[in-house]
Amino acid sequence: MARRALGHATLTLVQAVETALADSDRCLLVACSGGPDSLALAQAVVHVGRRRQLPIAAVVVDHGLQAGSAEQAAAASSSLARMGFTQVSVRPVEVIDSGAGPEGDARTARYRALELEAGERGGATVLLGHTRDDQAETVLLGLARGSGIRSLAGMAVRNGPDGRWLRPLLGIGRKVTEQACRENGLKPWQDPHNLDPAYARVRVRRTVLPMLEAELGPGVADALARTAMLARDDADLLDALAAEADPGTAALDCLQLESLPPALRRRMLARWLRLEHGLGDLSAGHLFAVDALLTDWHGQSGVDLPGGVRVRRANGGLHLG
Amino acid sequence: MARRALGHATLTLVQAVETALADSDRCLLVACSGGPDSLALAQAVVHVGRRRQLPIAAVVVDHGLQAGSAEQAAAASSSLARMGFTQVSVRPVEVIDSGAGPEGDARTARYRALELEAGERGGATVLLGHTRDDQAETVLLGLARGSGIRSLAGMAVRNGPDGRWLRPLLGIGRKVTEQACRENGLKPWQDPHNLDPAYARVRVRRTVLPMLEAELGPGVADALARTAMLARDDADLLDALAAEADPGTAALDCLQLESLPPALRRRMLARWLRLEHGLGDLSAGHLFAVDALLTDWHGQSGVDLPGGVRVRRANGGLHLG
Repeated sequence: MARRALGHATLTLVQAVETALADSDRCLLVACSGGPDSLALAQAVVHVGRRRQLPIAAVVVDHGLQAGSAEQAAAASSSLARMGFTQVSVRPVEVIDSGAGPEGDARTARYRALELEAGERGGATVLLGHTRDDQAETVLLGLARGSGIRSLAGMAVRNGPDGRWLRPLLGIGRKVTEQACRENGLKPWQDPHNLDPAYARVRVRRTVLPMLEAELGPGVADALARTAMLARDDADLLDALAAEADPGTAALDCLQLESLPPALRRRMLARWLRLEHGLGDLSAGHLFAVDALLTDWHGQSGVDLPGGVRVRRANGGLHLG
Repeated sequence: MARRALGHATLTLVQAVETALADSDRCLLVACSGGPDSLALAQAVVHVGRRRQLPIAAVVVDHGLQAGSAEQAAAASSSLARMGFTQVSVRPVEVIDSGAGPEGDARTARYRALELEAGERGGATVLLGHTRDDQAETVLLGLARGSGIRSLAGMAVRNGPDGRWLRPLLGIGRKVTEQACRENGLKPWQDPHNLDPAYARVRVRRTVLPMLEAELGPGVADALARTAMLARDDADLLDALAAEADPGTAALDCLQLESLPPALRRRMLARWLRLEHGLGDLSAGHLFAVDALLTDWHGQSGVDLPGGVRVRRANGGLHLG
């Protein structure tokens, strides 16, 4: 297909994929649900692969969570084949209840399947269809947690081991992917989960963001995506500074910590609890309570953390028991 | 009045004022609009002043923006006198249209009047009645701008020259100040501006925040206030790092800047444009365009900034003309 034949929205997606790829020469593996975002992304990848003479492939993960999910995966697979993909895998996965919620559990299963598929394709780059609207939703969900700028940082354009995960559409609105589907005669699947208000993300998408745009102006999704990018860079630098300052000891010296700026001190505390003691992401409340052993010390007996551990202050140091 | 006679909400406010004051022994000057927040704050300051044996005073700023504003200021002044303030000033101000919008212009005039009053009271601490709800609103308004974590940092508990401005109620919800008014039989004034949906802040207060609480849970205002506090500490540290790294030169060395983490690089650019060239707060869009002269250099002719100035890249440096 000649480049000039591309519709405007499709061209926008092709350019976004080109920019995000930079000079990568790995196989391009599209993760496709059959929904509008990943279907439009797949179409763009067909053009980019042809132009760069790179191998392309697609994978459809069947989460098995809804009746007819196998048929739906097969339909997505057919759309991909019609689009020009000769390498399409359907991967059924088992979503295991870890207590992290159904969305988190499905994500864990999905990424594991994508990782396996990428490995079998010789270390392919996995292209994911997340858009600017997904990013804005992620920022709002992070904001509602109130646990600091890392939770506002949304998703990275590229991350994972060896930069495996690529999200080229993070700067592009969902309207553009929908338009690209129309331009290419693609019939995307509408996931009924995307209409279920039991999910916080669905409520953000269907109620919160439209209301914010109505009350504060149509640029809100853009502003949220920009906030994510800036917050990510800030959080990365501050985390790196905390890692540099890490004394790597089992106990932490109170006097030394007290003299540090709070932004660094709290990150060092979180890092210490995570790396030395295996505690996962703490809530802001827990972290503030530990921090108060330094900044508001008046003989507290200690701070109880999840997992039945307690941080105590003794002999000028913080200890975990 | 004996301490045990205080109502629960009033006691909460008294404790918040005590904590925020730390060991200050300056005169306590309450800025009071007659609205519920500052009226309840004034009542708490009466108790704190008595307990600490500190001089107290109050000032009512009459912005002259509404019919009857002088009468309203006089009524607030009477309430304060009944509460036990022997030193109450009413300061009429002239709000000058600077193009920054009516809210910004009124704020400028108000803070100037408060500053004068504080000076005449021998460098008093000025206590302001902003609550956790005001803070949450400020964060949401900053989020809608999308210009980075500084715009999420809200208001500081203490700032200004000599730590003059004190906002002891930033951690306390508006419901508590309203309850404290009831406990003390105070009749707060309801500013009609607070009902006018022409103001973005009013829309945030009356529509956006209640909707966020309904969709995402009742802890949203708390989460936003926590985000503000964390973002403020982060932004302070990153600004300090940019100040340390400032070469203090009229042109900036491109190679040197390109090697820096983006969080530091963008702050150094903003700082350079502000300090060396008098440019105020730039939009994220302008800053990204200047940054692209470093990170995406392909012979751009330059970036036009407000005030008719242009940043160019030449001879390995950034220059402003």
